[in-house]
Amino acid sequence: MKRRLMLGRAGLAAATASVLATPAIAQANPQVRWRLPSSFPRSLDTLFGTAEQMAKRVAGLTDGRFQIRAFPAGEIVPGLAVLDAVQAGTVECGHTAMYYYVGKDPTFAAFTALPFGLNARQNMAWMQYGGGGALLNELLESYGTIAFPAGDTGAQMGGWFRREVKSIGDLDGLKFRIAGLAGQIFAKMGAVPTQVAAGDIYPALERGTIDAVEFVGPYDDEKLGFSKVAPYYYYPGFWEPGAHLHLLVNKAAYEALPPAYKEALQVAAAEANSDMLAKYDFLNPQALRRLVGSGTQLRPWSRDVLTAAWKAAHGLYDEMSAQNPGFKKMWESYRPFRDNLYTWFRVAENSYDSFALTASQTVR
Amino acid sequence: MKRRLMLGRAGLAAATASVLATPAIAQANPQVRWRLPSSFPRSLDTLFGTAEQMAKRVAGLTDGRFQIRAFPAGEIVPGLAVLDAVQAGTVECGHTAMYYYVGKDPTFAAFTALPFGLNARQNMAWMQYGGGGALLNELLESYGTIAFPAGDTGAQMGGWFRREVKSIGDLDGLKFRIAGLAGQIFAKMGAVPTQVAAGDIYPALERGTIDAVEFVGPYDDEKLGFSKVAPYYYYPGFWEPGAHLHLLVNKAAYEALPPAYKEALQVAAAEANSDMLAKYDFLNPQALRRLVGSGTQLRPWSRDVLTAAWKAAHGLYDEMSAQNPGFKKMWESYRPFRDNLYTWFRVAENSYDSFALTASQTVR
Repeated sequence: MKRRLMLGRAGLAAATASVLATPAIAQANPQVRWRLPSSFPRSLDTLFGTAEQMAKRVAGLTDGRFQIRAFPAGEIVPGLAVLDAVQAGTVECGHTAMYYYVGKDPTFAAFTALPFGLNARQNMAWMQYGGGGALLNELLESYGTIAFPAGDTGAQMGGWFRREVKSIGDLDGLKFRIAGLAGQIFAKMGAVPTQVAAGDIYPALERGTIDAVEFVGPYDDEKLGFSKVAPYYYYPGFWEPGAHLHLLVNKAAYEALPPAYKEALQVAAAEANSDMLAKYDFLNPQALRRLVGSGTQLRPWSRDVLTAAWKAAHGLYDEMSAQNPGFKKMWESYRPFRDNLYTWFRVAENSYDSFALTASQTVR
Repeated sequence: MKRRLMLGRAGLAAATASVLATPAIAQANPQVRWRLPSSFPRSLDTLFGTAEQMAKRVAGLTDGRFQIRAFPAGEIVPGLAVLDAVQAGTVECGHTAMYYYVGKDPTFAAFTALPFGLNARQNMAWMQYGGGGALLNELLESYGTIAFPAGDTGAQMGGWFRREVKSIGDLDGLKFRIAGLAGQIFAKMGAVPTQVAAGDIYPALERGTIDAVEFVGPYDDEKLGFSKVAPYYYYPGFWEPGAHLHLLVNKAAYEALPPAYKEALQVAAAEANSDMLAKYDFLNPQALRRLVGSGTQLRPWSRDVLTAAWKAAHGLYDEMSAQNPGFKKMWESYRPFRDNLYTWFRVAENSYDSFALTASQTVR
């Protein structure tokens, strides 16, 4: 009886709370409209599509009260200026790759991809549990923004080449459209990193103004149609063993959100981490098959190119660490984390993958 | 002027909508309390912790209105009876591994892990885009439940052995605590799959009643302290190249939820897909180091064991396909998906991993 009475009181309290809470709920769930420029064009649907999916998820989680509109690169903000726009508060958030901002600070590169760095899955471990996320947000402090991991392309391809690169000597003087730290590494190996506007790549390759171009992987690359003018398709893209993207948010705008809306943003970004990879892993095998079917010649990098690139990359990181304390701090977190994780991956993950990938072709 | 007028109207409409919407919002966001039994004990904190994290996320997304309480295995539902409890509606949802239910239908195995099947990342691609999720929910139809992918352990280890297994002959008569399809595969190779209750494993190993036991990976295995009585730690656990977990939900309970609560459940599960792996990838390297430091002897399976196991597994899948139309349907989706995905992984992913994992130890 006493228990029943207590339940009755609890029930009454709940009912009262429910009535009293109604106006509070309405206030706690305001209509919010945000704009989300992407660094990617609509044609790259796995990349731009992730921004649209995040927006849809946030709306669904908030009964349509928190509306985010995604814009392709260039529509309201240029693709490479998303950080600037979010920092300025022109827009509340954006979907971008932090390595587009290496001109501001080369440390940004590590949060998307470092040559010979972490693969997609390993990068998540560093961002979430290994201190990477904290380092990025510390770096973003002075930009008035915060970032949430939001998708990854997986290991990329090494690009399209007009002629074969059989050994490191073939890189000498090779005009390669490649940017950022990867460009500096290829320069150390004798190549000439070259900037060409996106729309000019095809004619430049056709005429031989450039010898090679790198982009993403089979699904995205197929759309560019490079195989006709540069048939050799190299792998792996050791400078992007996983390109990690982020949902970048203006800090003041974020802080003004009700708690549940903050969580909606966080979790919509987190969902993209497994979903974008899954989509790429579904689409890339099909695109690779079509490319090879239409004449693309797959070529692995020779061991001497890989080894020289490994040395050039690590030499560059040492130089940058000497010049930039922020880079040094990042590299002192990243490198031991990578090496420890590699020790584990050599055991169960890679021994499994290496056997199974071969056995599926050879064991009958 | 016309534009301004239109904006004014829109503003008015929004204000009216906001006032009118208040009572509807209160009704659309009821207090809901669910119970979520996990198949895992509290001591396995990465596994049980995921159930707690999902519950916390759902509460955060709904301003505490949708409360889920996670229970460790055995507290309200036995660890291996989560499907039964969710089906019966005793609880609304649970966090479990579908392969625990191979006794009901061996097809369930594929949705957690198939020997020589997809790794963690590949499994996500099959579940989300390759038809795996649809097949699982079709199978669960008659159980009145639906499932959302919710975490993965990554590639597991091959277990603890009292003596070395140098070649397939050493498996002859070996008493191995291993269950499910993996047990059947080891039986085909001469071993004797043996059932021993969890609490009896250590004394059974010590006395030699059993010769070997398999569990998960370094972080979870370390807690069991097997290294003193069975020092040989084999890899990879080719029967679990990634063990995928699911949030299992009673269909009627799910359908009764408001749309935003459904999305909260979906996205809390989706978040676990990258988060649980990241946590394991953070913890496993540290545990492996401690294990090796305290005497554990790492041993790779010999090539002849792996090849025989590959043949035994594929033979078993053919037998099961002949007996069980549901298994056949699953395998006819799974196998080509795996083989196509392997073709792509051989290119960029595995060539990168294999080079980088070695170079980090050898190139200076």
